[in-house]
Amino acid sequence: MTNSVNTTARLLITCPDKSGIVSAVSTFLYNHGANITALDQYSTAPEGGTYFMRLEFQTPHLDLSRQVFAQTFGEAVAKRYNMSWQLSYAADRKKVAILVSKYDHALLELLWRWSRGGLACDVSMVISNHPDLKEAVEGFNVPFHLIKVTKENKQEAEAEIQSLLQGNDLVVLARYMQVLSADFVQHWPNKIINIHHSFLPAFVGANPYQQAHDKGVKLIGATAHYVTADLDQGPIIEQAVERVSHGDNVETLRELGEDVERNVLARAVRWHLEDRVIVYGNKTIVFA
Amino acid sequence: MTNSVNTTARLLITCPDKSGIVSAVSTFLYNHGANITALDQYSTAPEGGTYFMRLEFQTPHLDLSRQVFAQTFGEAVAKRYNMSWQLSYAADRKKVAILVSKYDHALLELLWRWSRGGLACDVSMVISNHPDLKEAVEGFNVPFHLIKVTKENKQEAEAEIQSLLQGNDLVVLARYMQVLSADFVQHWPNKIINIHHSFLPAFVGANPYQQAHDKGVKLIGATAHYVTADLDQGPIIEQAVERVSHGDNVETLRELGEDVERNVLARAVRWHLEDRVIVYGNKTIVFA
Amino acid sequence: MTNSVNTTARLLITCPDKSGIVSAVSTFLYNHGANITALDQYSTAPEGGTYFMRLEFQTPHLDLSRQVFAQTFGEAVAKRYNMSWQLSYAADRKKVAILVSKYDHALLELLWRWSRGGLACDVSMVISNHPDLKEAVEGFNVPFHLIKVTKENKQEAEAEIQSLLQGNDLVVLARYMQVLSADFVQHWPNKIINIHHSFLPAFVGANPYQQAHDKGVKLIGATAHYVTADLDQGPIIEQAVERVSHGDNVETLRELGEDVERNVLARAVRWHLEDRVIVYGNKTIVFA
Amino acid sequence: MTNSVNTTARLLITCPDKSGIVSAVSTFLYNHGANITALDQYSTAPEGGTYFMRLEFQTPHLDLSRQVFAQTFGEAVAKRYNMSWQLSYAADRKKVAILVSKYDHALLELLWRWSRGGLACDVSMVISNHPDLKEAVEGFNVPFHLIKVTKENKQEAEAEIQSLLQGNDLVVLARYMQVLSADFVQHWPNKIINIHHSFLPAFVGANPYQQAHDKGVKLIGATAHYVTADLDQGPIIEQAVERVSHGDNVETLRELGEDVERNVLARAVRWHLEDRVIVYGNKTIVFA
Repeated sequence: MTNSVNTTARLLITCPDKSGIVSAVSTFLYNHGANITALDQYSTAPEGGTYFMRLEFQTPHLDLSRQVFAQTFGEAVAKRYNMSWQLSYAADRKKVAILVSKYDHALLELLWRWSRGGLACDVSMVISNHPDLKEAVEGFNVPFHLIKVTKENKQEAEAEIQSLLQGNDLVVLARYMQVLSADFVQHWPNKIINIHHSFLPAFVGANPYQQAHDKGVKLIGATAHYVTADLDQGPIIEQAVERVSHGDNVETLRELGEDVERNVLARAVRWHLEDRVIVYGNKTIVFA
Repeated sequence: MTNSVNTTARLLITCPDKSGIVSAVSTFLYNHGANITALDQYSTAPEGGTYFMRLEFQTPHLDLSRQVFAQTFGEAVAKRYNMSWQLSYAADRKKVAILVSKYDHALLELLWRWSRGGLACDVSMVISNHPDLKEAVEGFNVPFHLIKVTKENKQEAEAEIQSLLQGNDLVVLARYMQVLSADFVQHWPNKIINIHHSFLPAFVGANPYQQAHDKGVKLIGATAHYVTADLDQGPIIEQAVERVSHGDNVETLRELGEDVERNVLARAVRWHLEDRVIVYGNKTIVFA
Repeated sequence: MTNSVNTTARLLITCPDKSGIVSAVSTFLYNHGANITALDQYSTAPEGGTYFMRLEFQTPHLDLSRQVFAQTFGEAVAKRYNMSWQLSYAADRKKVAILVSKYDHALLELLWRWSRGGLACDVSMVISNHPDLKEAVEGFNVPFHLIKVTKENKQEAEAEIQSLLQGNDLVVLARYMQVLSADFVQHWPNKIINIHHSFLPAFVGANPYQQAHDKGVKLIGATAHYVTADLDQGPIIEQAVERVSHGDNVETLRELGEDVERNVLARAVRWHLEDRVIVYGNKTIVFA
Repeated sequence: MTNSVNTTARLLITCPDKSGIVSAVSTFLYNHGANITALDQYSTAPEGGTYFMRLEFQTPHLDLSRQVFAQTFGEAVAKRYNMSWQLSYAADRKKVAILVSKYDHALLELLWRWSRGGLACDVSMVISNHPDLKEAVEGFNVPFHLIKVTKENKQEAEAEIQSLLQGNDLVVLARYMQVLSADFVQHWPNKIINIHHSFLPAFVGANPYQQAHDKGVKLIGATAHYVTADLDQGPIIEQAVERVSHGDNVETLRELGEDVERNVLARAVRWHLEDRVIVYGNKTIVFA
């Protein structure tokens, strides 16, 4: 079912599980003219668990302004159930910046899907520590910023990147080969998505395809996750694998893996843009 | 999340899509002490479509008897929204009969999963037109009935089977190689599940593995569907495929296919038992 | 294992199965300084079948010129075993033309893989019956030819295309929405690869995603095949599927399907370029 | 292609890579009346690598006795190329013992496939440290031995198991929950296959499904490997995964995982029985 993007709003809720939540939320929406077109829920336990909910609803007949609607929901419903909640409107496209180094596959997949309408966002810029992909990026009419990073200038470089990123809603690391500092990361809680080229938690750190080859695994994978200060340990959003064999060397693993990486990253970014992901502890609820 | 099977009820609803349904249903349940633990919905169109809903709720604090609860829901909610609906209690285990011929793989998969608690039902009997699987069936403490079918006795045989099936809620054709008559089928609307050994609508009819081999396909599949009078054309519940190659002959296709068949059939039966399938026209809504 | 592309040769053989073929071929190669680095074989039957073989060998120490090597193999080995055979050198890159209409996904996947070395060929041109993709194609430094096709000019248009295609080794239909005439097709036996957007033989002809939606299938697929005069019936090279649900409409099926299409087509084209596909009757042997 | 099991022989070869091996081996076989029906090869490097080969050939027209055939091959071919090699005859069915604890899924899958001809071996016995599965095993007419294992009697228990295992060719750990001592393991180099219920190297050790749940992975897997003294670190034979979600708890992960485990273990055992696996260092070559 397709609804006009201009009339779709989304509500994400986290709260202690309790009887009556669906009734309270859906009745509030109904009473104010919202038509629920999607509803997902999950609770961590049969009793005493934490409850998560995602609603999509149509807004043409809302009887309140956005501001008053949110305020009323907060007072009338959210407070009663002790909810953390987030209300967003599909018409407010998220601003997304992409960081990349030299590998182009993940970046081009995102730009290609975005350019044909498959990712509902505004790609505001691409930042890279190498000049290689400038032409490819500008071919999509997206600004390209080169910010070289060395051991010596790392702090300044990060500051420069932070400054460029002001106003963005999401940062995507599409094979950006620099480790971001804990200080950097904490400015973007659950707002940096990274693609790691292994089936985490296997093969953390550098050269996962070499590690996979050395180990002789029969499947290789990729993992999209939110970035935390703990390298390769943030909440996992999506994973996939591809079958390999003894006949593959590190190079063919890398080639096969790139196809997995670009699919996994594209799905994770899309789900984030559509407000389908809730982080809870170090894990994610994905209402895909 | 696992809830006690003894306290779980399920409500399936089909009705014209309209604003307010979630609110009406969830508020009714809340007001009568039911705690919603799962909710899925789907509408065929943004406006003016048909709406489908599946709810799971916990019953320990229901304030009405089963009979009055159903009656009240019918009058207070269902009538207003013109709903077709079905209310079931997980504690009322469905009675299931299995029909089989000579191939044992689909039958044994069902019996094995059932015997270890993976299929919440009572398997009341196995009926076969061949004696071969009698011992295997009785090893699971399930009654085995042999009813031979020939061109001459087909009508009597079907009558005998119908008589045995009285009181069952579901009939599973686990590679039963006789075509059931239209007359037989119409007694069991959306209550006979068949496993067809191809990826329908490809390769209807006899010898699908031979057909697949002749065509040179690179994947073979299996399809679980409800049986209608139209052979191999009933609503599809589940499908899966397996990769094959030029090196496979009809025999190895059959072997690989049997693994797909048993998984696909087991999933379809489980979803039916858990009231996850709604038939709409010649298609299914599966809230899996 | 990676060998230099400049030293790799490939031999494809089809012949009546008989004892001694491996010995005869491998000994011939060894005696003339060729080092076998890959060998695949298949026979259609334990006895009296048809035998297929693919060898990859390294040529730096060959003691004969290309011409004499081929001639000698033909006389000393192929004649004795009544072989159809084909000898090719990876250094002789195949010339490939791509035909496309308006959908860009399959085309861009091919161009992108080709531009980064993943498809060992020369893309000589793209021909389209619509101007839409001109800019995208020229961005890859590939010539773009617009040849409009109408009911009236179909014959002339095909003649013009044929004339442009002179000298190419492979024609790829990357969602070219015109049916090629039988006359056109017979000029390119097993040299035109098409991507059909369904899991053939299901849903031949137009609008397969609409057909899939109407049927309510739970998987959608794509099929790469050689084009014959019989529409959508040529030898299948590769197929893949993606899981879908009742919640998908024709549009989302199309989006999911495009990802399958581009992967399936890219694999089929790569296998053809690496001489991994032998057509036999209306089926393929794929030594992938 | 299916050949009579009674006439099939298999040759596995490992040696330094060198030109002429295929020619030497295939010519030897041809000269002695063997008809090659399958041939796979792999080399670890374009030059100076290690070479692996698997041949299947038919023996009805062999001109030498088994003993002389092996001796002659050893002297005429193997010595020249410094080969490690193994010759086996499909008619000599391997003797297999299965060790199990309480979980029945992996055991029953093996026994069921074996009983219908899908695993070409003689299952000589099942040994368990619990009595639970005695009846199920004996239903397949396979002897069941109960050998309880405690901290105190571990050494005696292992000695008793070793004594029972005398004369077997393969030991399968179908969810045997005792760690075998290094001393035990070294008596069975590359002859013990274990199924580990995670996608190794992720989640070694105990309770992998709990570990997977804690980590929030989106796929769970299973790994079949040869057992070495290093727990969960032996050469991997086969792996597979299944998609899971936030909605799964440890129990549903376990249920889904069991289906993956039984498939992965069955494939690994079949490949071993058909002499398709060569161990090289801590990795496997699998000619599947």
